[in-house]
Amino acid sequence: MATAAELQKKVRELEAKLAAALGNAGPVRQKIDVMSSEVVDSNPYSRLMALKRMGIVENYEKIRELSVAVVGVGGVGSVTAEMLTRCGIGKLILFDYDKVELANMNRLFFQPHQAGLSKVDAAASTLQAINPDVAIDAYNYNITTVDNFQKFCDTISTGSLTSSPVDLVLSCVDNFEARMAINTACNELNQRWFESGVSENAVSGHIQFIIPGETACFACAPPLVVASKIDEKTLKREGVCAASLPTTMGIVAGFLVQNTLKHLLNFGNVSHYLGYSALTDFFPAMTLRVRELQNTLKHLLNFGNVSHYLGYSALTDFFPAMTLRPNPQCDDSYCRQRQAEFRAKPVVELATEVTEDSSPVHADNEYGISLVDENSPEEETPDLKLVDGVQVAYSIPVDNSTPESSTGGAVAASELSLEELMQQMKSM
Amino acid sequence: MATAAELQKKVRELEAKLAAALGNAGPVRQKIDVMSSEVVDSNPYSRLMALKRMGIVENYEKIRELSVAVVGVGGVGSVTAEMLTRCGIGKLILFDYDKVELANMNRLFFQPHQAGLSKVDAAASTLQAINPDVAIDAYNYNITTVDNFQKFCDTISTGSLTSSPVDLVLSCVDNFEARMAINTACNELNQRWFESGVSENAVSGHIQFIIPGETACFACAPPLVVASKIDEKTLKREGVCAASLPTTMGIVAGFLVQNTLKHLLNFGNVSHYLGYSALTDFFPAMTLRVRELQNTLKHLLNFGNVSHYLGYSALTDFFPAMTLRPNPQCDDSYCRQRQAEFRAKPVVELATEVTEDSSPVHADNEYGISLVDENSPEEETPDLKLVDGVQVAYSIPVDNSTPESSTGGAVAASELSLEELMQQMKSM
Repeated sequence: MATAAELQKKVRELEAKLAAALGNAGPVRQKIDVMSSEVVDSNPYSRLMALKRMGIVENYEKIRELSVAVVGVGGVGSVTAEMLTRCGIGKLILFDYDKVELANMNRLFFQPHQAGLSKVDAAASTLQAINPDVAIDAYNYNITTVDNFQKFCDTISTGSLTSSPVDLVLSCVDNFEARMAINTACNELNQRWFESGVSENAVSGHIQFIIPGETACFACAPPLVVASKIDEKTLKREGVCAASLPTTMGIVAGFLVQNTLKHLLNFGNVSHYLGYSALTDFFPAMTLRVRELQNTLKHLLNFGNVSHYLGYSALTDFFPAMTLRPNPQCDDSYCRQRQAEFRAKPVVELATEVTEDSSPVHADNEYGISLVDENSPEEETPDLKLVDGVQVAYSIPVDNSTPESSTGGAVAASELSLEELMQQMKSM
Repeated sequence: MATAAELQKKVRELEAKLAAALGNAGPVRQKIDVMSSEVVDSNPYSRLMALKRMGIVENYEKIRELSVAVVGVGGVGSVTAEMLTRCGIGKLILFDYDKVELANMNRLFFQPHQAGLSKVDAAASTLQAINPDVAIDAYNYNITTVDNFQKFCDTISTGSLTSSPVDLVLSCVDNFEARMAINTACNELNQRWFESGVSENAVSGHIQFIIPGETACFACAPPLVVASKIDEKTLKREGVCAASLPTTMGIVAGFLVQNTLKHLLNFGNVSHYLGYSALTDFFPAMTLRVRELQNTLKHLLNFGNVSHYLGYSALTDFFPAMTLRPNPQCDDSYCRQRQAEFRAKPVVELATEVTEDSSPVHADNEYGISLVDENSPEEETPDLKLVDGVQVAYSIPVDNSTPESSTGGAVAASELSLEELMQQMKSM
């Protein structure tokens, strides 16, 4: 047995190592009962509660009652979980069955000393240290096996702080099979979820908000920026791997959590599809609520009614628009059931174009640049102010033949046939 | 003195705490001499080197020779530094003079146990553990004092791995004074840099690439999405603070490092201005190299020549375009000197519009949608394929009266007078 002096030395060494490991062990964060707006250095919520004072979020504290499931805790999922944890989400449920490897160190979150640990355990321990107020459940299994799929469904449908269904499911998985499993579960459970993905070449990504029955599910149509359909494990066996960058993955996680916050805390406009192309910094976006951009394109290009998908091809200088409405022949029977339920909802008439009212066109035009209104193309607008060198080049054609029909919250779309849509996607 | 048994117990306790602190102490990452593409779990660079195989980056290893200075290690700067570290940057130079506080825990990177440490020391220690291959210098001072400003300039101009100037400076500061100090230094040193910022209400941000003499410097014109001009410390004294979100800050850091990589490793197109509005997921972007979007707008809206700033107002349905060329009357004398040098550079004729060649228009049109070409508006293009319900609504006016002039790499812009530009910015 070691002598007392040797042991004393060992204690000192360990204490020093521990202090170093803990970053010189400053004050550790204690649990906090109520989110406070107080502006003191010791309040981890002051900058978040300031969102109320700034008029961005009405009731930020509500976040502590909310539960989010994150499926896949890799390059996107781990950062997603960390952002939600730092935002003070009430409960976080993590699913993954992979281990941390040094090969993951080119992405944010995990650290080399965690190599070999399960991703969910390593993540849960780091996240709990960052914010002890968050309830964290971690499940270390593959959701695509029959048994685990049922466990997954059960957890989603009873996982909230009050044992009700979780408020949102975020898919951060890296393969087609897992996405289909989440899609099937969410259609069956009528659960809203976000799909996300990053391309194999690491320089593009997307998020997509899926509301069963209302928007296209993952089986209705594949996402436009398709994440790898090939399981990473298959690739690795062949000695190749997909490229990845901490930048693209961090950006996609940021988009995912930002839209999660907007949806759950009811501020801003939630994107139904948001893509990102790193090479050209292009962001095709689509929402059901923000109609302005689509309407602008309708103004400018006059192709029928407003569509739900807005894309842009840098190569061909053109903005295509297409619908992402659900596929009536979707293979997923629960998707078809949700579609029928959605169609049966009472139809709410949308307000007609704001430009039809008699107020000055573009009264708040902060750039001092304007175009004539779609519905009064020939009308002289006396307040039309153009900066030097800028002129209105053409009148926008009138088209009164296709009044917008309204289906729930969605605006009518110039629908491509599903066949055409699929054909276009396949050829991309 | 404690007994051997007591000490033995203490050793076991400390060992357990240390193991916990180190995440059960898996294998720690050793230094690596040469970046390898080998696909094994232990290779932290396999996913980055895969960018070569994917055809994205020609020579990824070059990153190990490059040096980047990050000024400000807060919500944006810390994530920026982490991304660069994980990407394997050769050398990272950090500047900050603030301490980690629990109030910073709503952003990524720092952890509660680091509260009280200087941001640069805490960051350097975490980053070094993540990637021991990166050379990290940390400076804990305020760059805006006279003495420190000179030290800052000296460090920037000799800070690379070979004692030459750093390859890029990234501004991640949170106040106007520090931005002006960086601007002054970079104009004097003829140093390329990126400005970045996040708004006080936490829901918008921007990055801007500044090339002295070629693009507007920070003193030429304020950025369009202005980060707080009020020092956070002033606000805190008054018991209020700016709001912040880990999402927006992570996204801005992602944009910053993504464009840093594109610039330093020469792939894709570097954005000269990239904004982000979280509420509507809108991204005004402007580059000198990507002319497609601007040309599209020129096609569609016909307002003069192609401009350098592309904005979009969600409220008014309109895309304004304005130049961000430098201000000939800029207060910064070095900026004016760089402008004179830039003007004196030999003029390189730009290739004329690609659509002037005889190959089929939009041969690679992945969406199957097209518009007639600007230079042949009346011409029938036999390969013009429109999807059902989509039609060309108007012919684009011909304007041969304003051939593009060329100034270096920049395209000619329909310039607003500086007064008008400033007026517009002030009114935003």
